[in-house]
Amino acid sequence: MIEPALNPESGFRRLRIDLAYDGTNYAGWGIQPDQRTIQGVVEEAISRFVRHPIKSVVAGRTDAGVHATGQVIHVDIPANTVASRYHPDQEIFEPENFKFRINQMLDSDIRLLRVSDAPINFDARYSATARRYRYKLLDGNRDLMPQDRLSAVTWFRELDIELMNQASEQLLGKHDFLTFCRYREGATTLRTLYDFRWSRDAAGFVICDVAADGFGWNMVRNLVGAGVCVGEGRFDPSWMRQILEGAARVSDSYVFPAAGLTLIAVDYPEPESSDLGPILTPTPFGG
Amino acid sequence: MIEPALNPESGFRRLRIDLAYDGTNYAGWGIQPDQRTIQGVVEEAISRFVRHPIKSVVAGRTDAGVHATGQVIHVDIPANTVASRYHPDQEIFEPENFKFRINQMLDSDIRLLRVSDAPINFDARYSATARRYRYKLLDGNRDLMPQDRLSAVTWFRELDIELMNQASEQLLGKHDFLTFCRYREGATTLRTLYDFRWSRDAAGFVICDVAADGFGWNMVRNLVGAGVCVGEGRFDPSWMRQILEGAARVSDSYVFPAAGLTLIAVDYPEPESSDLGPILTPTPFGG
Repeated sequence: MIEPALNPESGFRRLRIDLAYDGTNYAGWGIQPDQRTIQGVVEEAISRFVRHPIKSVVAGRTDAGVHATGQVIHVDIPANTVASRYHPDQEIFEPENFKFRINQMLDSDIRLLRVSDAPINFDARYSATARRYRYKLLDGNRDLMPQDRLSAVTWFRELDIELMNQASEQLLGKHDFLTFCRYREGATTLRTLYDFRWSRDAAGFVICDVAADGFGWNMVRNLVGAGVCVGEGRFDPSWMRQILEGAARVSDSYVFPAAGLTLIAVDYPEPESSDLGPILTPTPFGG
Repeated sequence: MIEPALNPESGFRRLRIDLAYDGTNYAGWGIQPDQRTIQGVVEEAISRFVRHPIKSVVAGRTDAGVHATGQVIHVDIPANTVASRYHPDQEIFEPENFKFRINQMLDSDIRLLRVSDAPINFDARYSATARRYRYKLLDGNRDLMPQDRLSAVTWFRELDIELMNQASEQLLGKHDFLTFCRYREGATTLRTLYDFRWSRDAAGFVICDVAADGFGWNMVRNLVGAGVCVGEGRFDPSWMRQILEGAARVSDSYVFPAAGLTLIAVDYPEPESSDLGPILTPTPFGG
């Protein structure tokens, strides 16, 4: 089914929405038949509020169980949307009020954090210059407090942060990350890795920060697994480079679980900039 | 039904267990018919492991939805309990191993943190000299991140930490806290409050720390509500004292939800001390 592409200038208003979610109870971002997805419940809430079927465009399609504290979407809503269907004459539509109303409709595991009018050439997906992910794990077979169980995972052995950083920095820059990605037909694996860094936070968790212009399927979780292989002393730091060159691979048992992964930010050019580019994907409307 | 009281010296071994839980999915600590309770699942796991029906004695009976990071119980297990039922001759029972095995049987929202042999006069409930609770809330109508939704609650107005501390310190010491407690037949409300303090953490949450020799039913959540009434400017700090004297009361709408409350520690005399006292409540055995 081909949906009509409407120009947001003609009767529509483009909103940028920054949001956060705990992905535990969802089958990921993207809509799937018979599954509860974040895209599904967010679009349903907005559609009910604006009384028009809305489709969103997302910066980072997160997999099942993956969280976000800095996800970004854009939606085009009818320009004549009112703040209240009961008192249409009394209330002017304000993004802040819209945020409050939509949050009232959503479960507390999804929160809109900011809603703002966006330039018509803002595209949550194609204007983004980088996606930033964080992975959180507790090493050395320590007890994961129940309060942390939804956002961090455990690892049996102790990890050496310095060795992991030596390994990881070899991957920075533009490479074909095919060997770090689960295969998906037609998907590019040529990516520029801006950041791949390990640290230990005040509570003792091992934190992995990764940023790139984009990520292949399961790429972050493979990068984390490769780092852990080095950090526990299984392989030398140089082994990381061998994976990239196709001479080694990350064992499936080291592809880390979704629960530890969070999309923490999406980078865009400054709003004043013209770098947002042309409108590449007008949001399609219709059910 | 009267259960036989066995002396832990005769064939039993007394263990002190420190544990943590996320109370979200439980009907509180105490066993109730047809309800999933923390006591219920913990006792079931231990009983299955030691192949003997075990009853626990708990330091702080938490209500439905309340969490713990520093709960303490004691249990008496048969002295001949082995580490493995499959290789009884090969493995000696060690508390650390026991902890690991029980944690494998429990869901990840309950974790045993420490298991140790306890003196026979150690009683998790009656030896305790203080219970420490922490309440976490986000004021000023700010967005609660989905990641914090199970351990903190929101409040509409801004709270003034200094005013709340002025109010709270008036309650320190030994008083009849009847007016801060939900009524329970026969329960004492004469308590000594050691700590009742407000602060703001690095992330902007309002933190309330409360410690007493014991707490009446809903007492912490009433104390928090009274503090909030003062912090939002509804009443003067002196109003707190008026509640204690029965001249005012905390409105039901200010009795704060369970989700924000966590039992963080239980104080005991030093193990070397004889202050643990006589054995007041030998653990009853039997179904």
